[in-house]
Amino acid sequence: MSKKHLFKTTVYYEDTDAGGVVYHSKYLNFCERARSNIFFKHNSTPMKNGFHFVVKKLTANFLFSAKLGDSVEVETYVTEIKKASLVMKQVMYLNHDKKKLFEMEVLLACLHEDKVSKIPDDFLKLLSDEKELRQ
Amino acid sequence: MSKKHLFKTTVYYEDTDAGGVVYHSKYLNFCERARSNIFFKHNSTPMKNGFHFVVKKLTANFLFSAKLGDSVEVETYVTEIKKASLVMKQVMYLNHDKKKLFEMEVLLACLHEDKVSKIPDDFLKLLSDEKELRQ
Amino acid sequence: MSKKHLFKTTVYYEDTDAGGVVYHSKYLNFCERARSNIFFKHNSTPMKNGFHFVVKKLTANFLFSAKLGDSVEVETYVTEIKKASLVMKQVMYLNHDKKKLFEMEVLLACLHEDKVSKIPDDFLKLLSDEKELRQ
Amino acid sequence: MSKKHLFKTTVYYEDTDAGGVVYHSKYLNFCERARSNIFFKHNSTPMKNGFHFVVKKLTANFLFSAKLGDSVEVETYVTEIKKASLVMKQVMYLNHDKKKLFEMEVLLACLHEDKVSKIPDDFLKLLSDEKELRQ
Repeated sequence: MSKKHLFKTTVYYEDTDAGGVVYHSKYLNFCERARSNIFFKHNSTPMKNGFHFVVKKLTANFLFSAKLGDSVEVETYVTEIKKASLVMKQVMYLNHDKKKLFEMEVLLACLHEDKVSKIPDDFLKLLSDEKELRQ
Repeated sequence: MSKKHLFKTTVYYEDTDAGGVVYHSKYLNFCERARSNIFFKHNSTPMKNGFHFVVKKLTANFLFSAKLGDSVEVETYVTEIKKASLVMKQVMYLNHDKKKLFEMEVLLACLHEDKVSKIPDDFLKLLSDEKELRQ
Repeated sequence: MSKKHLFKTTVYYEDTDAGGVVYHSKYLNFCERARSNIFFKHNSTPMKNGFHFVVKKLTANFLFSAKLGDSVEVETYVTEIKKASLVMKQVMYLNHDKKKLFEMEVLLACLHEDKVSKIPDDFLKLLSDEKELRQ
Repeated sequence: MSKKHLFKTTVYYEDTDAGGVVYHSKYLNFCERARSNIFFKHNSTPMKNGFHFVVKKLTANFLFSAKLGDSVEVETYVTEIKKASLVMKQVMYLNHDKKKLFEMEVLLACLHEDKVSKIPDDFLKLLSDEKELRQ
């Protein structure tokens, strides 16, 4: 089991649609914020020296709908790190009662100037830190 | 093989991000526009008499990145219709060279006032029209 | 001078565009988050019992561009409260050096079920609290 | 009176919010699509050879709310072209009954690699074409 990275955010008007709840693709945005936050909390950024990550594949389950004003939290697990790609599992909950809203597995590829590239060492260190086993 | 529904759209600034190409979750938005368009072209709307659809599950492959100004087209196939849900396959191409950008399979549930519900007859007719076999 | 309401947020990929910085209309989104947050921090919500606010008019200056990973803060001032409308002034800064990014004056109308309506008492109390003079 | 540039678009789920109508800042997005479209229809792009435009100032009136499925059209007028900036007036209507939804005046600055710059000749020609007087 990898380390858990926790990210909290709030549902604003812009995240909802005329159905009255969060627009489906916004859950992916919330998960992306959580992934970027791993870099930000290490005083880094996911776009550095020409390197960045792109989503290549994902499978997602939408379990329950968040609504305006809800606080949600995203748990992110780095489950696999390869030479030029990595896999993360992300699960989203309502803050107040831990109801599960959404879960996703996402495959990310590392690019350098738009070409698939070995993950650079500073990104690798930062991501491996996230992956290390908890005692 | 179901009937193919074709939808065209263009990539604007708002669809791109600092990586220089379309933000990943926007492909889901383009696919949602294509699904809604099935209703619009029948002078209907996907939100009617308290009924609407929500995304329950999806698997997606991101194959190539569209950029500012690109015209893209989304092919939508209704592959399965059940009592309260349906499955669609959607594939996105660049307009000018038919390069495949993105493909997705999506499971949608029908809701009535936030409760899972039998798909109403007018929606069913409209969706079955889309599903009919091509010769 | 009215009381200042402070709201902090972070710039994620979804907020940027291919120009490399925040997409212009996202500053309005950040300001809307700040306004909604006034309600959230009072354990209320800006959409309640059929009442909500809509933007009727705004003037905005875009002074400097925020980029991926920037922390920004929005200062919101309730400058005028009328029977069915209010005016707010909102100013956005970079967190780390207080550089001014954006400023806006916005006129909001209160609606009840899509009709212009007197601001209800609980909203009025909450907004007047924000407006009270600082010593 | 300058020439009128006409752009049509449709309101999808992603453009609406829990209030049931189009999220306010999306009208700015629709106007940006209309401005970009001026470049696209001349087989150009608003981001070329390091040059692009940024919004510096705007005043906007929100007159009526569009909803899911509405077709809207944006009329764009280039009202002033200076050395490094230009002013456009943009008005949005419902397609079916020409009801006015929104109007905006926007000041745009030309940048080259993030520095204010003289508008390059090809952009100038394209924009002047839009500005020419109608008989």
